[in-house]
Amino acid sequence: MRETLAEWRPAVDEAIADLVPREIDTDYLESFFGEPTYEYDPDGIQRALSDPLWDLLDRGGKRWRAVLFLVFIEGFGEDPTEYMPYACIPEILHNGTIIVDDVEDRAVKRRGEPALHHIYGRDVALNAGNALYFLPLKILRENPGDLPAEQRLAAYEMLMDELNRTHLGQGMDICWHNEREVRITLAQYLEMCACKTGCLGRIVARLAAIITDQPAHVEEAVATYTELTAVAFQIGDDILDIENSLGRAGEFGKAFGNDVREGKKTLLVIHAIEESEPAKATRLQEILEAETNTDAEVLEALSILEDAGSIEYAREQALGLAAEARAEIADLELDAETTERLNTFTEFVVDREE
Amino acid sequence: MRETLAEWRPAVDEAIADLVPREIDTDYLESFFGEPTYEYDPDGIQRALSDPLWDLLDRGGKRWRAVLFLVFIEGFGEDPTEYMPYACIPEILHNGTIIVDDVEDRAVKRRGEPALHHIYGRDVALNAGNALYFLPLKILRENPGDLPAEQRLAAYEMLMDELNRTHLGQGMDICWHNEREVRITLAQYLEMCACKTGCLGRIVARLAAIITDQPAHVEEAVATYTELTAVAFQIGDDILDIENSLGRAGEFGKAFGNDVREGKKTLLVIHAIEESEPAKATRLQEILEAETNTDAEVLEALSILEDAGSIEYAREQALGLAAEARAEIADLELDAETTERLNTFTEFVVDREE
Repeated sequence: MRETLAEWRPAVDEAIADLVPREIDTDYLESFFGEPTYEYDPDGIQRALSDPLWDLLDRGGKRWRAVLFLVFIEGFGEDPTEYMPYACIPEILHNGTIIVDDVEDRAVKRRGEPALHHIYGRDVALNAGNALYFLPLKILRENPGDLPAEQRLAAYEMLMDELNRTHLGQGMDICWHNEREVRITLAQYLEMCACKTGCLGRIVARLAAIITDQPAHVEEAVATYTELTAVAFQIGDDILDIENSLGRAGEFGKAFGNDVREGKKTLLVIHAIEESEPAKATRLQEILEAETNTDAEVLEALSILEDAGSIEYAREQALGLAAEARAEIADLELDAETTERLNTFTEFVVDREE
Repeated sequence: MRETLAEWRPAVDEAIADLVPREIDTDYLESFFGEPTYEYDPDGIQRALSDPLWDLLDRGGKRWRAVLFLVFIEGFGEDPTEYMPYACIPEILHNGTIIVDDVEDRAVKRRGEPALHHIYGRDVALNAGNALYFLPLKILRENPGDLPAEQRLAAYEMLMDELNRTHLGQGMDICWHNEREVRITLAQYLEMCACKTGCLGRIVARLAAIITDQPAHVEEAVATYTELTAVAFQIGDDILDIENSLGRAGEFGKAFGNDVREGKKTLLVIHAIEESEPAKATRLQEILEAETNTDAEVLEALSILEDAGSIEYAREQALGLAAEARAEIADLELDAETTERLNTFTEFVVDREE
């Protein structure tokens, strides 16, 4: 999968540049957004849209949503190069959510550089992020693949279902973050992941299925595969933060225990509170609730998680979800190479080091 | 039009409550957003979505986008009560943009109370605003009017065109606001209004035309009518700020000259800079560029605008656009009462006092 990612990245970036050029001019604006009633200001739109997007894209990112889409397309027996604009849909949506999330979370950094709102201002960054929610949806209307009406409608309806649930997931996550007590169930935590991260994954899979006209059971299987993989990825993220924290806690001057300091209600936390003796559960909750934590408090929280076996529990869950994901696609008639790639991808999301 | 607004408002609010109930429960979530993979958290979604929306709606607002939609439906010879969920589409979109705009502009107040992000936090408010961008689009998918596929697709494609241009308009406006010099043309100012405010108006008109299956020339005429009216409304806003400022400048302790203090590049400002002698144009630009202004400076800016005849110019433009709007619908076969209502509406947006 790693080679596939590296191999496709330049072509994906080229396709994105066709949709939002690095240099905005009137011809582009008129052809993509339609004739103005009066007169566009290409300089303004350069700074409002293209500059923030390309700044973010040039910082890195694996473009895995676009590449996974292309893997599906190839698996369905079609030529990926014919569907490049569609591959950009989930990728641009994802970059839009990054910009907006960073404003919501008051993030300081993104991919090692200042978050976009610290460079362009909150207003420009936020409007750019939101513009990137709608720009990809216009690709379907441009209809580069000459799709019949029913496929375009199916794609729109699918996108509306998934993007609505994305916002439910983000809403739950934010709400829990702002609450003091940990009151949610493990199932609700998984639902939050399924909505917040899984739905964008489902868009990748379902879009590939819809525009290549796959039967409903194939669309559902690849959607479930991607959702499960995305949830496993999210849990992998939670594990990584705690494991890195345990590893780094001894190193002088290195930040550690970010999730604990932020009071994040991860799968590990919910498990530890359910499984620990009452005094320890209360103590963990206290540390998470506090506005700030000393290093000693963070270490105490980490050891409560360790003692409860929450890291192993979370890893088992993630591995279980990855296995479920592989089972979802096992019966599809995909070529061996695609199946291999998709299987590898489910392993990568759990066992990664960054 | 005033009676029509008051008459329809309760029914519009009822229709919105059907889409986003004041009290969120699992049944609602499952029926509107679909079955969860695991388990929704209705309490979280109550606070993330329903509370902020209803807080904003309960503060007032005329719901004129919904009502204008119903006026069009009636004008097209259909029963408005059969299309209530669709009337909510532009109204909910509008309320979404209000929440997001207030985050972008760092607004303190909204409809006389603290802006939503000051009550619910920036993260919750922003996610709610963005959720309200996608929630209305799901109404088409729910298909309460049992519309055939081609009408649903036409509605989606129309929405994607207009919502993309909305973000171009907002992007231009924000960019100009952040720039020091006034470099834009009158045509670009009008384009910004046409995109930022006009496109949401166009959605009102085009949605009514599409779902009642009007011919293309009717859809185009009502779209242009609403766009022109919206631009006239925006210019009316600019005039109102300056006129109120001139009126209030003598009153002790009252804020005045908000647009000048914010350095807003309004139609009046662009006109005054083009028409004034160079020294005055430079001075106006200096006052607008300054981080803060004394009352004396604001008064000086106001008198430059007055001397250049910019208030009269802007009013003539607004009246001209309103007349153009009326001309657009003059040849449509609407009943006399609808035509009268639509004509009155174009007058109201220019000659209002709040």
